Amino acid sequence: MTGRLTVIGTGPGDPAQMTPQAAQAAARAAEFFGYGPYLDRLSLGSHQVRHASDNREELARAKAALARAAAGAEVCIVSGGDPGVFAMAAAVCEAIEAGPAEWRDLDVEIVPGVTAMLAVAARAGAPLGHDFCALSLSDNLKPWELVEKRLAAAAGAGFVIALYNPISKARPWQLGRAFALLSGILPATTPVIFGRAAGRPDERIETVPLEKADPARADMATCVIIGSAETRIIERPGRAPLVYSPRFARESA
Amino acid sequence: MTGRLTVIGTGPGDPAQMTPQAAQAAARAAEFFGYGPYLDRLSLGSHQVRHASDNREELARAKAALARAAAGAEVCIVSGGDPGVFAMAAAVCEAIEAGPAEWRDLDVEIVPGVTAMLAVAARAGAPLGHDFCALSLSDNLKPWELVEKRLAAAAGAGFVIALYNPISKARPWQLGRAFALLSGILPATTPVIFGRAAGRPDERIETVPLEKADPARADMATCVIIGSAETRIIERPGRAPLVYSPRFARESA
Repeated sequence: MTGRLTVIGTGPGDPAQMTPQAAQAAARAAEFFGYGPYLDRLSLGSHQVRHASDNREELARAKAALARAAAGAEVCIVSGGDPGVFAMAAAVCEAIEAGPAEWRDLDVEIVPGVTAMLAVAARAGAPLGHDFCALSLSDNLKPWELVEKRLAAAAGAGFVIALYNPISKARPWQLGRAFALLSGILPATTPVIFGRAAGRPDERIETVPLEKADPARADMATCVIIGSAETRIIERPGRAPLVYSPRFARESA
Repeated sequence: MTGRLTVIGTGPGDPAQMTPQAAQAAARAAEFFGYGPYLDRLSLGSHQVRHASDNREELARAKAALARAAAGAEVCIVSGGDPGVFAMAAAVCEAIEAGPAEWRDLDVEIVPGVTAMLAVAARAGAPLGHDFCALSLSDNLKPWELVEKRLAAAAGAGFVIALYNPISKARPWQLGRAFALLSGILPATTPVIFGRAAGRPDERIETVPLEKADPARADMATCVIIGSAETRIIERPGRAPLVYSPRFARESA
């Protein structure tokens, strides 16, 4: 007998932002693998087994889940946001490629979700309203020089930039370096959005100009969106401003 | 009395990929503005009013919806995918910025959704598993030179590229030009995913090497994802391959 592996995204945390498809996949699975706080977002029954693990053990988690599926279990791997964006889907593919041949014969399904930058953008207005990129600021899995190369290329070409994994205790200086690098390319007034815990009770969305962007405003639950030179702010009396990137761009190459 | 404007995303088309938050927002609205096929995705009651318009009338639609909200109506603007990604949220912000002062006092809420590239990526594996960008190939609202500049910058820096609006009857040559430009930067074997109508009954997901990428495989319902030099393909006997971008990158700047 062969089991099945489904990789789902819970969305950013508000239960109303998890798709019915993800909820249905969770309802039919027997064993769950994921970072504990993400598993906590599901309402599991007493017959459903939790295998919680630490946030930085993606590959080991993927292997453990694949082994259980190969043994015949109905397995669900749980990501926050969307599983395909800096999350578990890539780790599962890495494990399958390097693993035993039988893992290639498993029924693997990936269920998309609302990734953090989309939820943050929705709360701020439409900062991703035109061309944009998503970049992990972590240099755990790539050299820092490559992060800088990508930041410079994206900002220089006019992409809005969404930064995932902006800062952590083990990576305290990278976000400040990124702001300093971008300050040499973008106007000092470029809007920077610190979007923390979008859609959750502890949500905090703040917009500041690049020249005043303080890395201390970010933590691991924050997605930072840095505008392009085209990104605009609409002030509104008594309300948070709307930050948006127009659909048109006049600048040429 | 002042109404309210909610901008929702239906997701790519599978009703199970529309969030409960979007469904709830639709349930409480009285008037709906959007491209007809997107409105068709909602199950509206007989008391709910549809204002369907053409796909290229975003700004006029935004203005009409804002005027109705300012007149006191509960208004919902409907996008496919996520409203913040090449969709209505930016058009609404543009209309508010240029419109009467009272529009800045409206209660405007944007409800995120699953955007096309996430749904396509989920069906293919994890091609967006590392740094990526989203770029509209339409030169209706920006000069073609800027599109080329962005393609070259993104590919040169190792971003995976998701192309929205890849082709249409009025823009027949742009996708071929994009493939030709990228062929000068990326390996000939770079995976290119043509993701059409992900999650819908007429879904078609095809992966080909860049050197064989034929623009005729795409239409306006297609999101094209072009890998980086790191993107890999896992062949599986009797199943579609898994296409993924590893979480790590060895290349330096």
